[in-house]
Amino acid sequence: MTAELKFIGFINTPFKKIKDCPNNIQLDGNLCDITLYDEYKDGLLGLVTGQHILILYWLGCSDNKADIKNACVQKTCKSVMKGTFALRSPLRPNPIGAAVLPIEKLEGGKITVRGLDCLDKTKLIDIKPAIYHEVENGK
Amino acid sequence: MTAELKFIGFINTPFKKIKDCPNNIQLDGNLCDITLYDEYKDGLLGLVTGQHILILYWLGCSDNKADIKNACVQKTCKSVMKGTFALRSPLRPNPIGAAVLPIEKLEGGKITVRGLDCLDKTKLIDIKPAIYHEVENGK
Repeated sequence: MTAELKFIGFINTPFKKIKDCPNNIQLDGNLCDITLYDEYKDGLLGLVTGQHILILYWLGCSDNKADIKNACVQKTCKSVMKGTFALRSPLRPNPIGAAVLPIEKLEGGKITVRGLDCLDKTKLIDIKPAIYHEVENGK
Repeated sequence: MTAELKFIGFINTPFKKIKDCPNNIQLDGNLCDITLYDEYKDGLLGLVTGQHILILYWLGCSDNKADIKNACVQKTCKSVMKGTFALRSPLRPNPIGAAVLPIEKLEGGKITVRGLDCLDKTKLIDIKPAIYHEVENGK
């Protein structure tokens, strides 16, 4: 009932501590670099600047909080109890982060996007062309 | 350089063979049921009918195609060579499928949505509130 993920690269953001990370992606946020490991760089062939991509990454910062991570119900910042799958908290059975952002720059196996919410050196899991964009007003 | 995923439930779709699966999600497609394992059912607290969710699932059908899966460049159905990360093919280093769909029904630890593209009995990895919706015209 498990599967193994391989990290395919890493993400550089300005956020060195969890308290510095924004609560979610921000379209007007900081520039962030996504670097693929050498063996995966050819996989970017065909992506173009301006294209929206779905970025999946591993929110490893929660690895040392097993109790909270395995809880199915969590207290939100507004002190309301909510199910883990009704939240985007990194504390979840599989701590995968997801963001849809346009490619700002694409060069030498590195993609630059604006507004990721994760820690510096976060591990990359996947990139695929997005068929979604941000829902306005959270609807 | 790896991490372990835990399956949290499974998805029932009408598709018993890969050749029956649509090439992508279809908003007017078939009804599909997402069932969480008992220990995760409380995690749905707070989700509501009509809400858009991001569904992540494991495209295990590609497990027996290691050669193609590890290739970074693939021939598309139009015989064009494209990078794996410029495609939504299930043949990729981490075969995770992603769909954003509205909840049609929510009952007893089971979510019904319309239009998933995966095989019957596909394993579920995560559900989170979507902050994206489908990009019109693929842009």
